[in-house]
Amino acid sequence: MLTTSNRGAIQPFLAMDVMAAANRLEAAGQDVVHMEVGQPGAPAPRSVRDAATKALRDGRIGYTDALGLRALREAIAAYYASHHGLEISPERIAVTTGSSAGFNLSFLALFEAGDRVILPTPGYPAYRNILGALGLEVVELATKAQDRWCLTPDAIRAAHVKSPIKGVLIASPANPSGTIMKSETLQAVIETCEELGIWFISDEIYHGLDYGMKPNCALRYSPNVVIINSFSKYYCMTGWRIGWMVLPEKALRSVECLGQSLYISAPMISQVAAIAAFDATDELEVIKHGYAKNRDFLMAQLPKIGLGNFLPMDGAFYVYCDVSSLTDDSMEFAKKSLEEAKVAITPGADFDPKLGHHYVRLSFAGTYGAMQEAVKRLGGWLG
Amino acid sequence: MLTTSNRGAIQPFLAMDVMAAANRLEAAGQDVVHMEVGQPGAPAPRSVRDAATKALRDGRIGYTDALGLRALREAIAAYYASHHGLEISPERIAVTTGSSAGFNLSFLALFEAGDRVILPTPGYPAYRNILGALGLEVVELATKAQDRWCLTPDAIRAAHVKSPIKGVLIASPANPSGTIMKSETLQAVIETCEELGIWFISDEIYHGLDYGMKPNCALRYSPNVVIINSFSKYYCMTGWRIGWMVLPEKALRSVECLGQSLYISAPMISQVAAIAAFDATDELEVIKHGYAKNRDFLMAQLPKIGLGNFLPMDGAFYVYCDVSSLTDDSMEFAKKSLEEAKVAITPGADFDPKLGHHYVRLSFAGTYGAMQEAVKRLGGWLG
Repeated sequence: MLTTSNRGAIQPFLAMDVMAAANRLEAAGQDVVHMEVGQPGAPAPRSVRDAATKALRDGRIGYTDALGLRALREAIAAYYASHHGLEISPERIAVTTGSSAGFNLSFLALFEAGDRVILPTPGYPAYRNILGALGLEVVELATKAQDRWCLTPDAIRAAHVKSPIKGVLIASPANPSGTIMKSETLQAVIETCEELGIWFISDEIYHGLDYGMKPNCALRYSPNVVIINSFSKYYCMTGWRIGWMVLPEKALRSVECLGQSLYISAPMISQVAAIAAFDATDELEVIKHGYAKNRDFLMAQLPKIGLGNFLPMDGAFYVYCDVSSLTDDSMEFAKKSLEEAKVAITPGADFDPKLGHHYVRLSFAGTYGAMQEAVKRLGGWLG
Repeated sequence: MLTTSNRGAIQPFLAMDVMAAANRLEAAGQDVVHMEVGQPGAPAPRSVRDAATKALRDGRIGYTDALGLRALREAIAAYYASHHGLEISPERIAVTTGSSAGFNLSFLALFEAGDRVILPTPGYPAYRNILGALGLEVVELATKAQDRWCLTPDAIRAAHVKSPIKGVLIASPANPSGTIMKSETLQAVIETCEELGIWFISDEIYHGLDYGMKPNCALRYSPNVVIINSFSKYYCMTGWRIGWMVLPEKALRSVECLGQSLYISAPMISQVAAIAAFDATDELEVIKHGYAKNRDFLMAQLPKIGLGNFLPMDGAFYVYCDVSSLTDDSMEFAKKSLEEAKVAITPGADFDPKLGHHYVRLSFAGTYGAMQEAVKRLGGWLG
């Protein structure tokens, strides 16, 4: 009898399921406003597309070294120097097939099966799903809106006392809430991890997308943290599947060997194109300005249509709305929003298995027109 | 104390290590003939590059459904109809980030940690490395040159009696030897697996590259096999990282959910471009004709320079040479070949930890000129 595995029977990534359903509706001729996935409405910058077009003309798109093209690793090192004042050797940078590969590689390189890894809840569901598939124990530590959804050193200590923790993974700006950790909290969390011998993994994929408060790079506080970043969000390169890690020396060779076998290399065309992304600041800042405008619009309009229970978004491009006054089943709520209002949104269960039924996440990475249309449709539907 | 994991301490993929060393030599101004990785010397077909260029002009390169663009899944289904006379629903096709993702996804979806999976030796090292990283027990069954490096049903039965087996993974045409299983052997192996409740995974990445004998698709013998294939080899799209799986219904949702979290989706630009690959048969057959010419050249010339101990290559683009008359340490032999002859070749330890020290693999996917130059350099070095 052929049976599939239990470890493969992970939870769906609901945002992706909603997107697949929305794509089916569109294929059937319906018009859908997409607020379900964290995907910029804009294409990649002109310089990125030009670099890719040139690579297509120049010849073979082949395998690269598993750690990536040297020129891209150097460009990323230069970014740390110019944006963060940090001297990072290109040798410590691994180019990855999106941040997705960064998570998988770091979990495999740092943790044994059975190890306990802390995730703040609510958080990005793929963390939990990948950790689960790899046989790791996910320790979900609930955070609260009144604490700006931020994890504290005390919570980490308490979990570690109960049973030793091997890793802590935090994103700031956070998904789904968009909150940014205060620098002193981030530093205290990193110092606590170092003291306790816990790996700290910093998901910095939303760096560059902030609307006032600035997030700090975790490398500022320790050379022993693992950084995961990507060209998907600020650089508008989602479907290119290209990201990077900054690794402590001792984890480098393991990540290289795992990368050779699990990925061979990141897509070469995306690597060549990504080098040009660092030259596109003017264009990207205009796009970011658009998110800021979307953010202001939603902060003003959502309360008027009964969706006003959320924290101001410090960064990223998500609103995490408490909809408990409207429903006890945000999964059903999101399903109906798609089917009836034709607005695709993501149920909170993606981010928080326990309390997510009272929340939905809306992405404001689309166009201003899409935001207006979404508010109009949701307002009509809810009103 | 921060320590990396044992499970992440996998063996390097030596072909990739050799490529990285060769790339360093080239960066230092040396001229290297590449025979170390299985990478076509030709770029992707014109139609593929045109489709990618058009996609870059048309707009956003975004996430797709985790299982891939519908149009690509339909094009792949049409390939099975036209090339194999098989009716495969597009629903059963998962587009993957190269065959690398296909292996990872199938291992996670089908097997629990601790399950035993058979690999014929010699074989592609990433199988062993990925299985090891995922906590699976690799059961290496030695095959012999006199059996054309093919696994037998009896060997599978014997291993299963010893301790139950959950999976068997075979590539035909094979890497590193290029041998193709006879249809009756393939059928017998698949029927044995079905009878014993063992998943059969068929790596068909070298389909399309055969020089006389034709390999059959495993789907011909059972709907319960898992097919892994890719656009990297016949279609010359290595660095695009794009491939596919054909799955039994019962494994589909698990692969979809794992794919959502582990990969989000394959690179969209590569998906769009791959659709055009099926229209490029004329161009690809010319390239394949070049491999056939390289093959004839090497079969005639290698014996003259002391590298004549290999089986005729039925398919793929590799020669697996027994070099035991020249060395007891093919790792050192390959190292010197790169440093002294400036020809990059892969030591047999990549494919066979036990007996690989007597073998090296040479790829003949490069140009005819590269083959001539390699024989000249190796001949001078060995002579």
